[in-house]
Amino acid sequence: MPKDSVPRPTLQRLPAYLQLLKRMQQSGATNVSCNDIAGELSLNPVSVRKDLAAVSSSGGRPKIGYVLDTLILDVEKYLGYARTHQAVLVGVGHLGGALLAYPGFAAYGVEILAAFDHSRTLIGSRIAGKPILDVANISQWCRNHRIEIGVLTVPASAAQSACDALIAGGVRGIWNFAPTHLRVPRGILVQSEDMAIPLAMLSKHLEQPEYE
Amino acid sequence: MPKDSVPRPTLQRLPAYLQLLKRMQQSGATNVSCNDIAGELSLNPVSVRKDLAAVSSSGGRPKIGYVLDTLILDVEKYLGYARTHQAVLVGVGHLGGALLAYPGFAAYGVEILAAFDHSRTLIGSRIAGKPILDVANISQWCRNHRIEIGVLTVPASAAQSACDALIAGGVRGIWNFAPTHLRVPRGILVQSEDMAIPLAMLSKHLEQPEYE
Repeated sequence: MPKDSVPRPTLQRLPAYLQLLKRMQQSGATNVSCNDIAGELSLNPVSVRKDLAAVSSSGGRPKIGYVLDTLILDVEKYLGYARTHQAVLVGVGHLGGALLAYPGFAAYGVEILAAFDHSRTLIGSRIAGKPILDVANISQWCRNHRIEIGVLTVPASAAQSACDALIAGGVRGIWNFAPTHLRVPRGILVQSEDMAIPLAMLSKHLEQPEYE
Repeated sequence: MPKDSVPRPTLQRLPAYLQLLKRMQQSGATNVSCNDIAGELSLNPVSVRKDLAAVSSSGGRPKIGYVLDTLILDVEKYLGYARTHQAVLVGVGHLGGALLAYPGFAAYGVEILAAFDHSRTLIGSRIAGKPILDVANISQWCRNHRIEIGVLTVPASAAQSACDALIAGGVRGIWNFAPTHLRVPRGILVQSEDMAIPLAMLSKHLEQPEYE
């Protein structure tokens, strides 16, 4: 199994660069320097320089910097947004419904084609034009539609079986919003969003004495 | 300004411990060992031992382990879930509406009292019993209700001004879902959820060649 070659800290900074670069482009700028980016995002210019060198072969020139249009394309390509990955969602509750209706995933190279639920009243209906199908058909449907990403917005108790069904259908990336640990075979990436962590960080912060 | 004394890796593991401990409690267990936890969550037992020693003064005994009920209370107290922090939400779109309707925040010690929006059709209505108020009143309302946490689900272009209004109202923790960098004074914690990062991790994973 090859090691994941992506330097995670770089990957975590790149989406913020992309947002900033697009804002600069909209406001009419044509070039950008590492120092500009570092200043705007309160980062170390050395890190920014290294990140961009890893991502873009176009190279920044002294006093001129990077050409904004080229750099944006390079970052998008590196982040995998240039190609569209097909996804399904499992669990159409509050969060699942919100994600289904969210129009912004296309900008990240992800398209949700359908959702699955076990509720008889939901199956057969549509949200934002996307069909809600029976969870019993997850594996076959994913296999037939060459689905790569599964978004899990089910309760914790239903997460492992839904995850197993997605993987049986050929899915290789799981975006997990269920508050539970998932067991997966090698070669499958689980990206978990646990809102308990940010809330714990905020709560701990608020328990510190107030200071100026 | 005192340094944040919370060891972040420990804090990131504790919510997963808590989920597991509660599942064990529901299934009738009374004691748990560090090795049990490490095995279930695929972690190093040494890390688990250190984490629990930092959090619980009750101590694990050889061959018996921790008393489950006591350990759960210790972890909840450490995570700040024992005390309730009052919050407001700004921006009642798809995601904001889903978070407002989500009944599970109480378990994390957070209660959303009200939401703010600029839409004339939304102001005056309620979602999940919570009033939707005019964004113009954020600062004063937060000050009057001693709000500690602000949840930002506005578009990027509206995020900084909403953040400034929350801070002017005495809020010290910002849970930011807007895809933008926020500038805040010292003593304010911003916890940002950028879905571009997990999606980029998944996309990069899918571009690697498939392997067994």
